[in-house]
Amino acid sequence: MGQATALSYTDKAGQLRLEGFLVDIAGVEATTDPIELKRNSRDYFWYSPILQQMLKDKVADIVVRPRDEAEVVRVARACFKHRVALTVRGGATGNYGQCVPLDGGVVLDMAKLDRIEWQKPGLVRVQAGAKLFDIDAATRPNGFELRMHPSTKRASQIGGFVAGGSGGVGSVTFGGMREPGNIVAARIVTVEEEPRIIELRGDAAQKISRAYGTTGIITVLEMPLAPAQAWIDVIVTFDDFIEAVRFGQTIAMADGIVKKLLSPVQWPAPQHFTAFRPYIPDGKSVLNAMIGDMSMESFETLLGATSGTITYKAASEDILGKTPLYEHAWNHTTLQMLKGDRGVTYLQCLYPHDRLVESVAEVGAKFGDEVLQHLEFIRLNGYMTASGIPIVRYSTPERLYEIMAGYEACGIMIANPHVVTLEDGSRYKRVDADQLGFKHEVDPLGLLNPGKMRSFVAEAI
Amino acid sequence: MGQATALSYTDKAGQLRLEGFLVDIAGVEATTDPIELKRNSRDYFWYSPILQQMLKDKVADIVVRPRDEAEVVRVARACFKHRVALTVRGGATGNYGQCVPLDGGVVLDMAKLDRIEWQKPGLVRVQAGAKLFDIDAATRPNGFELRMHPSTKRASQIGGFVAGGSGGVGSVTFGGMREPGNIVAARIVTVEEEPRIIELRGDAAQKISRAYGTTGIITVLEMPLAPAQAWIDVIVTFDDFIEAVRFGQTIAMADGIVKKLLSPVQWPAPQHFTAFRPYIPDGKSVLNAMIGDMSMESFETLLGATSGTITYKAASEDILGKTPLYEHAWNHTTLQMLKGDRGVTYLQCLYPHDRLVESVAEVGAKFGDEVLQHLEFIRLNGYMTASGIPIVRYSTPERLYEIMAGYEACGIMIANPHVVTLEDGSRYKRVDADQLGFKHEVDPLGLLNPGKMRSFVAEAI
Repeated sequence: MGQATALSYTDKAGQLRLEGFLVDIAGVEATTDPIELKRNSRDYFWYSPILQQMLKDKVADIVVRPRDEAEVVRVARACFKHRVALTVRGGATGNYGQCVPLDGGVVLDMAKLDRIEWQKPGLVRVQAGAKLFDIDAATRPNGFELRMHPSTKRASQIGGFVAGGSGGVGSVTFGGMREPGNIVAARIVTVEEEPRIIELRGDAAQKISRAYGTTGIITVLEMPLAPAQAWIDVIVTFDDFIEAVRFGQTIAMADGIVKKLLSPVQWPAPQHFTAFRPYIPDGKSVLNAMIGDMSMESFETLLGATSGTITYKAASEDILGKTPLYEHAWNHTTLQMLKGDRGVTYLQCLYPHDRLVESVAEVGAKFGDEVLQHLEFIRLNGYMTASGIPIVRYSTPERLYEIMAGYEACGIMIANPHVVTLEDGSRYKRVDADQLGFKHEVDPLGLLNPGKMRSFVAEAI
Repeated sequence: MGQATALSYTDKAGQLRLEGFLVDIAGVEATTDPIELKRNSRDYFWYSPILQQMLKDKVADIVVRPRDEAEVVRVARACFKHRVALTVRGGATGNYGQCVPLDGGVVLDMAKLDRIEWQKPGLVRVQAGAKLFDIDAATRPNGFELRMHPSTKRASQIGGFVAGGSGGVGSVTFGGMREPGNIVAARIVTVEEEPRIIELRGDAAQKISRAYGTTGIITVLEMPLAPAQAWIDVIVTFDDFIEAVRFGQTIAMADGIVKKLLSPVQWPAPQHFTAFRPYIPDGKSVLNAMIGDMSMESFETLLGATSGTITYKAASEDILGKTPLYEHAWNHTTLQMLKGDRGVTYLQCLYPHDRLVESVAEVGAKFGDEVLQHLEFIRLNGYMTASGIPIVRYSTPERLYEIMAGYEACGIMIANPHVVTLEDGSRYKRVDADQLGFKHEVDPLGLLNPGKMRSFVAEAI
């Protein structure tokens, strides 16, 4: 996989390098137990049958679990000295093999760096391994919440979300993670002979956004918060998916209606929404929504002009032991379906904001039940639009690529999730120039998550 | 002015009707003192030399000051019985003669109905005569603030704002008053033989929005609130007005940057900003902004890519005795200029969202210093765009109309503020069908603010 500079750990020299690494990090928790190695080398890439084939046998040689930043620095120094690849692992809820060690070496598990450093009104500073769920639980008593979170909020870590995520629940209001203002600062450890600790502030934080951990080891993040709201979870059912999309867009465009989630989902995907199945009659497409309490009456007033019916409405309670509505949107939609039907996979797409409903209808007519659409309304570059993670009845890679081409022919952009490099998966098919240049500064040997940034050519090892 | 059904109060019969009215409302505070009548028959229409001529001699015959809704009902009943026109007066900060009694009769001063009925998270229910400043002061300790307010926040009443305003400071985030969700409910008193009290909820509240008090006497409003934020007042100076506009648009489109006000103002208008003049070097155009504290660093990062300079930055403190920055935006911009120069007036316009900067440049080139532009970024129908209240060096009505035509030729819509009827001043040059039909239900004789809704034809008196 990937890089000209990759070194083997299977020969004698490689074994010696790993032994040298372990000696140098003595005192840092580490394991070479094969079961642990296997378990800590995977994420949710198996949603993709293509990635499943590509990644299922990739495995780390060592898993380390630093307790603090000083230990991270020791690991980074030892990796550089012994030329060992270093792949950072967060909550491992991603779908693109972001934390899969393509070239083996060290997996750095961030789970123990989970401390909240401080909170101020509208801001929180946390270690990268903190779970989104725990951050929200800690900020909410102070009247704030994370602006956005993936549908995997309960398991995801903030560092992994920033490093690999694009947005999520909340992006209908705040846009994606990469919109200016959505990451305030990041602190990273470089992988050099003497690792540096760099505080990236302002837009500099974008150097680590969606870089899959290739541009430094993120140890701390400063994130802006939204005022905590009383959210109402709502399911609206429609006979016609297009009407669900149209109503979703009406609410999306109504700036006086406060919302955190607007996800129209095409029947029969909702058939697999076990926790909410009693509220979804057969044959109905749904709009899953999180609406500000004070906006519910206005929401229902606008709904009155449609044929939609509210079948579920309850205060959003994000407590463990209760399945949240937001786990029926974004890529959890695929997961709910995969639980009962392993014959599907998914795509990622971006609908055109100026002919959104039309493009949904066009592409729907083209692929019928082979591709089930669901949309997530989001702001992007100041416009309201929708991304989508259509669920595809999988046959062959060739057919999957045909479907992608069919989407693109309807003016719907595709970010291919069946690839492992930043470049191939990026909406714009390139790595941000800043990120590439920055990688040379902070990881000259290309030891961080090797194979993920295809454009990068390392210095000779 | 206006209506076929208007009755005179100057003849003997008219005098008797007024006397009958006064007898029927005995106990309600009322005055016929000429100085009081004069003072309570005016608003800020004098910004327009055309309206100044048209309205300066309009005067009420009686001013009444009800203490509660029951007294409002008594006044409405007596007006109907005696066929007396009824014009509602709020804070009288409007600029279109909204509260000027075109046909004389009664002016109903709402100032004593200023009670806050209740607050809930995200909602407040208030009597229509409550001042915006007082509402904000009452909700802020509970963590909330009004979503938007006019630049006249310190004097305006909520009822007058809803009845005549379009939006204001805060509309950059929430859109205008008429966006769905921005008025939750309104309680009105009808003008009939037996006045009814009607609670309008949901979108029904739009029946009273920007209707100038012609569709019922608003006594109570239920308004959605925004979470209170720590706002930072910022002045950024630019050599070039267009660059100020462009940077304003950058921030406007950045959904991760929390803001309440973005107003680029063309030099030399800022010359008249007395309270902030020390922060504005000669020749500089400015961007006046209110930015969420947690977004300031991101704001400054984006500013770094321009030639703009922050000359003023301070926590927004809305306390009496200190001139707020927001009194240098919206139509206060005109007022600041009028204080030193009575030779100007203004227009109201809406820039096209998809060629905003270009249209500003085009119209700027066309009129030079004769028309000074300032923009207020707002959301409208789900799009980010900007309204504007250009300050016009006034010569003749004909030239004013030429300038309007010149704006429209650049694709900039004009809402003419030099007229007194809803229809002529409306952006769409018509009264909402709902409002017209509704008026027949609640004011069949057309006694409410006669002359303001030109399309309305009353039943025979």
